[in-house]
Order: sequence, then structure tokens, then C-alpha cells
Amino acid sequence: MTELTDLSLSEASDLLGAGEISSLELVEANLRAIDKTEPVVQAYAKVLADEARAAAKRADAEIAAGDRRGPLHGIPIGIKDNIYTKGIVTESGSQVMAGFLPDHDATCVANLKQAGAVIIGKLRCHEFALGSNEPPTRSPWNLDCYPGGSSIGSGAAVTSRSSFGALGTDTGGSIRVPSSINNLVGMKASFGRVSIYGVVPVAWSLDHVGPMTRKVRDNALLLAGMAGPDPKDPTSAKQPVPDFCAALEAGVAGLRIGVERDYFFYDGLQDEIRASVEAVIAEYQQLGAEIIEISLPELEITQDALFTIVLAECSTYHRKLIRQHSEKYDPASRVMLQLGQLVPANHYLAAQQARSLYRTAINNAFCEQRLDAMLWPTMPIATAPLDQIFEFRADGYPETPVSSMCHHTFNANLAGLPALSVPCGITSDGLPFGFQLTGRAFDEAMIYRIAYAYEREHDWHRRKAEVIEDL
Amino acid sequence: MTELTDLSLSEASDLLGAGEISSLELVEANLRAIDKTEPVVQAYAKVLADEARAAAKRADAEIAAGDRRGPLHGIPIGIKDNIYTKGIVTESGSQVMAGFLPDHDATCVANLKQAGAVIIGKLRCHEFALGSNEPPTRSPWNLDCYPGGSSIGSGAAVTSRSSFGALGTDTGGSIRVPSSINNLVGMKASFGRVSIYGVVPVAWSLDHVGPMTRKVRDNALLLAGMAGPDPKDPTSAKQPVPDFCAALEAGVAGLRIGVERDYFFYDGLQDEIRASVEAVIAEYQQLGAEIIEISLPELEITQDALFTIVLAECSTYHRKLIRQHSEKYDPASRVMLQLGQLVPANHYLAAQQARSLYRTAINNAFCEQRLDAMLWPTMPIATAPLDQIFEFRADGYPETPVSSMCHHTFNANLAGLPALSVPCGITSDGLPFGFQLTGRAFDEAMIYRIAYAYEREHDWHRRKAEVIEDL
Repeated sequence: MTELTDLSLSEASDLLGAGEISSLELVEANLRAIDKTEPVVQAYAKVLADEARAAAKRADAEIAAGDRRGPLHGIPIGIKDNIYTKGIVTESGSQVMAGFLPDHDATCVANLKQAGAVIIGKLRCHEFALGSNEPPTRSPWNLDCYPGGSSIGSGAAVTSRSSFGALGTDTGGSIRVPSSINNLVGMKASFGRVSIYGVVPVAWSLDHVGPMTRKVRDNALLLAGMAGPDPKDPTSAKQPVPDFCAALEAGVAGLRIGVERDYFFYDGLQDEIRASVEAVIAEYQQLGAEIIEISLPELEITQDALFTIVLAECSTYHRKLIRQHSEKYDPASRVMLQLGQLVPANHYLAAQQARSLYRTAINNAFCEQRLDAMLWPTMPIATAPLDQIFEFRADGYPETPVSSMCHHTFNANLAGLPALSVPCGITSDGLPFGFQLTGRAFDEAMIYRIAYAYEREHDWHRRKAEVIEDL
Repeated sequence: MTELTDLSLSEASDLLGAGEISSLELVEANLRAIDKTEPVVQAYAKVLADEARAAAKRADAEIAAGDRRGPLHGIPIGIKDNIYTKGIVTESGSQVMAGFLPDHDATCVANLKQAGAVIIGKLRCHEFALGSNEPPTRSPWNLDCYPGGSSIGSGAAVTSRSSFGALGTDTGGSIRVPSSINNLVGMKASFGRVSIYGVVPVAWSLDHVGPMTRKVRDNALLLAGMAGPDPKDPTSAKQPVPDFCAALEAGVAGLRIGVERDYFFYDGLQDEIRASVEAVIAEYQQLGAEIIEISLPELEITQDALFTIVLAECSTYHRKLIRQHSEKYDPASRVMLQLGQLVPANHYLAAQQARSLYRTAINNAFCEQRLDAMLWPTMPIATAPLDQIFEFRADGYPETPVSSMCHHTFNANLAGLPALSVPCGITSDGLPFGFQLTGRAFDEAMIYRIAYAYEREHDWHRRKAEVIEDL
């Protein structure tokens, strides 16, 4: 028999709905996985065993009474620790927030609780989603490797089978990067789709919160449970939440997928990833999609623009805190926040103007070419050894791994467009990687549909990470 | 008989519609006033005599054919020189733009032309609405006095009877200040009400363009002719333009008008102005309005917030130009733009956050007190001698006149709310001044209605400025 923890979120949900398993069984299965994997992986900031058991029992009673709220009812979910959870310690990986007990839930958490999800724990992140992660969370695929950040615990927990899904946050790629590294599906939805009320800011004009799961349908269900307009968040969009699964199985025949090659298929793209993503493109063509070669030279400005905006906004958010508590910040965040205070306003505003140019260019490309999505690798490399992410790349390409990792993801934060990472291969060294689909604003349903057409032919999710081979 | 130039815009419009006068007669009357006043006042950057005559003849022909487009058809209007006029030199008072011929009209100008208005000339402004105005435009009320800026020619021309109305721009008060000084009605409408496409930016998050006229009804007609959604301006609001005159004569019985006294009725408010504005308040009460004392301590942050935002945004707009042409800028703008480059991004963003606090506070005050408008002086002083605006005030109050002049106006730019200056007195030195009505977002009609209720009792507009006494 399949282990309960090997079920995808949606499979577990179906069995829960059919009364074949209980929420408590799912929670206990996750807690056993935690016992086995946490000593080496270290994905959790806090495991909420008692709270999760109690919530699961309530969910089981409601479901037994015929009162199932929806597909997330009774499903254990982990929450990145920079997301407020009422009465539960929320530290953003920082001594600065040690012991902080929010008096309210972030809206995305409140929405998930309302949908009946069970919060199984708080997941580790780099300090304020910016700085260090010490002691390091380790990749379940290779304990010496970096499992991707800043949603580092979210990726590691879902791939460790210690959670059925997790919330991450993404300012420059922090959902999609760990999703690619951990063989997961990760969505940074349209800016404004999910409220960021109650999420500790990195850079408020770029911040997103979103779901990380093992399969595409899981992801669509989890996004639907988090999303929606929120009067508490001024950046929240007044867009109704559609059924993201309604057209999931509609296939890709006749759809138009744009591929940009100058920036995304550059020399820094590793051969195995290049070959796999080319195979994905060829397969979509075989499945009936039209592949459109596009040009988007404005991509060259995305990295500088994003760094400038992040430095300026994060140093604004922390300007008082760092004066009061500079000794509590880890050195990596401290230097970033202090340097950020030196960014001149006219550089920041010029970066926002460059961002507008890019946003206009990509939206024009969507319109003029009548594209349903764009496709490129999520990352140009799979990952790197934990102790080398700030060194030059081992393959000799003159970039640091940490810089390569976000090279393909920044642009979607600047544009505010939905972007999804989908597993599409495992290197000869046993390290997974994914491809990325970018959609039109608020058309997450379309990129889920395109992703699903690939996933049903290639279920990479059945491959297990090293750490959990023997669970 | 009344001189044609003494007619208000709406009186002239009525006579035009009735066939009793022609557009050409209005233009010729304005041109005669220009001949007499311009040698001393110097309001115009460029008089468009031939173009205006030609446009007037076309308007007269259309009107004679029974094809009157609306109340602005055939009315001569002056345009501040930082507003693009197609094929007509637009220099923003700067050598940097010497000889610049826009290939398109600003949307507000295009809208006015569409409504049949006749462009009589381009009106002088401080360099880029920031720096100096040399040789100085002089106040028609006292040639030694400053007629208010930065829409310095707009105020001087309308009060000189050399134009029936004018467009000004207002980033911190530049419509309302010269309106107050020149005994005019001046509107800075809601942010987004009038497109700023084709207006040379000062600080794009604070910039507004709006009408300056002799009477309230004139102003409402002119605003209606300029306003409306514009796809070319991303900050343009999708608000339909109502008939601003529909309720003009409805009076103020039962309306609730808020008055804040700590900030606006401070020690720097001159006695004559204080007494007159108190009399206005008392009169509104007599007319049936309810006066509500309100508290708005967040006003204290408005000056710093506005300066920081203006410096950061204007130095961003000019960053390339000033590297290429620094010698062409006047010293006053140059130092401002160069200093602006030193503003740190986190100060700019903190200023935008402070602005949000203020905006929330004033909107809450409107809601909680169910206010229809707020009322205070437009300026704490009337004006100052031309050679003393950067000195300490002659009355000993420790502020410069130029700083006092905007003390009461910045807040409406930060809040994005409509604010109208209405004449309400003339000092014993013969210098006019006004009071200011601030309204709810997009409720310009309400503040026109309240202003009109006062104006019909007190027609300050019949008082003539020194320069035109003998015209």
C-alpha cells in the first residue's frame, strides 16, 4: 500500500472526503515523517503537534457529520515563519522577532483555516527572507546541498513528506526556486491575488505569498483556499477567485506558448536543464500547442531594477528596527539593510520606471503575439553545495549560484504576473529542477492547465528524495 | 456698459450663445488688454494673436451655423507654459526646453480644443514650476508684489483681464496660491480627475493641472472641459465627469463643514485674513451649514513629506537632463535638483508612508464626522514684495513668505483631495486673499456648490487690480 505521506494533497483530500482516511491519520503520518527527517533536514521552526491533532479531530468530527467545507478541510499545511499565525510564535528566522506572538492571523492563514486546513507547523526561512539560515536547512535530495530559499523550510518539508503543502513567500523567486530544487510545484500568483496582510514585508511592491505542493492540482486547490480580495491589504486586487481546476484537463491543443531564448537560454544555463526544457517545449508542440519565439530585450534591466527596489524598500521597513536592534540581525541581513539605506531615491524611482518599461514590454508581448503563457527554465542550475552558494559556480560560469538561482525568476515579481514552477527532470547527480510558466495577469488557471497537461505525462513527484527513500 | 473683459467666463459664454457677442470680439478685447498690461505684468510667455483670431473665427462660424459645442466654445483661455501645445513652443520657463515644439497636445488642452475653447497664449511659469521667474511677472494688484507661483502667468493674466480663464498646475499649491493672491477662483481637483498626460512633471505622484478663473461657475465649466478618464495617463481615474454646475445653487443648509484650528489658524496667520475667514465661517453657519471643529494632528507631517517626495521625484525626472544641460538650468532649480539626488530612497518611502497616514487620517475625518467639506484660509499671508519672498516675513513671524504661502496647500496634494481657493477679502494694503475648501475625493461639485453660496453674497471679482483700474 502507498504510504499516506506519499499521497498528493488532492489524493489525500479525495480519500478524506470519501471517509477512507481521517485528518488525524494524515497529521500522525506527517508527525512520524517529521520525527524521522527533521533531525537532518531541519525544515521546521516549530512543529504544532498538539494543535494540529486537535484541529484534525475537529475536522474529522465535522466531516463525519457531513459538513465538509471543501477540498482543504482536514489537510495538514505548513506555514512559512514570516507569515503571522495568531497566538503562535512567528519569528521570520530572526532574533529580532524572538518570541513574537501575533494577535491575528495573516489573511492567507485565516482563509486556509476557514477552509478547514490544519496548520501542522511553522517553516524555517532565511532571516526576514533576506539574510542567513543557521543552522542550515538541508536538501532532502542531497544533505550537502542548498534546498533553496528563502522559503527554505517550505520546500524541504513538502519534499520530506512532513507536510502535504506549504505556504512560501516570493519577492524575487523564493517560492519558485525551492520548488524547482525540491521537485515541487510552486506558484507565485498575480500581484494582488493573495493578500499579503500579515506577511512580514521584504519589499512591499514585489512581495507575494503562495502555495508549494507536490502536484499541480494540489497547488490549484491550495491557491484557491488562500486567495481573494482583502480590504486589509491595499495592494489586494478586487478579482474574484475562479475555480482554478475547472479547465485543468482541457489540454493545450491550440494554445500559444511564447519562448524567449536570448536571456533565459543564455550560456549560464546548464546542459542537462537546457535539454530537458527543450524536451518540454517539444512535447507541448506534440500535444498541439503552438510555440512562438519571442523577443524581450527589456529582460536585461530586471536584475538591477529588482535589487534596487528590494534594497530601498526593505531598508525602509527595517529603518527603525535596525537602529534599535542592530546586534540581533545576522550579518548578511544587516549589511543588506544598511547598504539599502544608501540607495538614492532617484535610483529607486528610476528602477521603478525601468520596471514599468519591462512590465509594459511583457504585457505587449502577451497581447501582440496572443500568447496564453510563456515558458522557460525556473533556474539555470539545479542547486549548489551549501557552502558554495556565494562562491563562483563550480562549472566555471562567472556567476555565483545564488545569483544564477534568481536569474530567471525576478522578472515575474517586477511584472506582477503569475509564474509557476513545474518539475521536469533530475540531473545525473540526482538533483531535481523545473520549468517555469508565466501567464497573463490573473490567469493562473491557464498556467495550471498547461502545467497539468505536462504533469499527467510525467509524474516526477513519484521520485523520492534521498532522505525519505526509506520512510 | 461693462467692458467685455470684465465679463466673467460664464457671462461671456452666455452672451456668445445668445449671439450678442462674438468669439473674435472676446479675443480682440483680450489682445487689447494684453497690449496694455503685458509691458508691466509680463504674464505671457507667448501671445498667440493670429492663431487665436483664426480659431475665434472658426468658432464664430460654427456657432452662427447653430453648432455650438458647449459653454467653452469660443472662449479665450490661456495655458501655462509647462503644458504641451501641439506645434506651439512650450518651454516651461526654462532654457533647457528653448524652442521645444510638442508634436501633440496635453490631454487637457486637447479636451479644451474639442470643447471649442480658443487658446490665446502660453503663460509664464517658474522654471519647470520649481525654480526662478526672470524677469519677474508682477502682481496686477501691486507691481512690487509677488503674484504667486508657480502658475505665475496664469494668475496674472486672468486678473489682468487678458484671458477669461487659464490652466495652472499644482504640485504643492501652485494653482491655489496665485488664485488667492490674484482674487481668483482656483481648483486643484482630485488626483486623477484631470489627465496629466502632456504636462511636464514636477513630482508625478503630486502633480495636478486645473482651472483658474474669476468666478466659481467659470471654474466649474472650465474643469468640466478639461477633465475625464485618459488611457494615456496611468494615474487618470476612471471617474465619469458629472455636471459640476447641476447643484451649484442648492445652498449650504444642512451641510457639514469641518474646521481645523491648530494647524491652519496658527500664529503665522495674519490678523486680517484670520478675521475674514472667521467671518466666512460665521456666514456659512448663518446660511444653514453646520460647522464641525475637527482635529487633524497628522497635518504636522505634511510639509516634510511633501518636500521629500518633490525633491526625490523631480530629481528623478531631470536626472539625465541635468547631467547634459546643467548650465541651462537657473541656479534655483539646479540646486534643488542636485540636492534632490541625495535624498535616500528610504527617506522618500518613509515620506510616502507618512503621506498615507495623513491621507487615511483626513479621509477618516471626512467619514467619521460625515463632512461635506473642510474650510481654512488658502494662505496665512496675502503675498510679499517680490524681493522679499525668500527673506523672513516682514511681520516678524519666523517663516519665509514662500514657505508660509504653501503651508496651507501641501496637504491636499498629499491627500489627492479636491481643493478650491475662493476670494474672500482684500487687505488694508489692497492685496486680495482667499479661503480654501477641501472636499471628498471626486466631489468637486460639492465644494463648487459651497463656494457659490458664498460668492453670490460677496462678489469680490468686481474689484479691479491696480494695473487694470484704467482699462
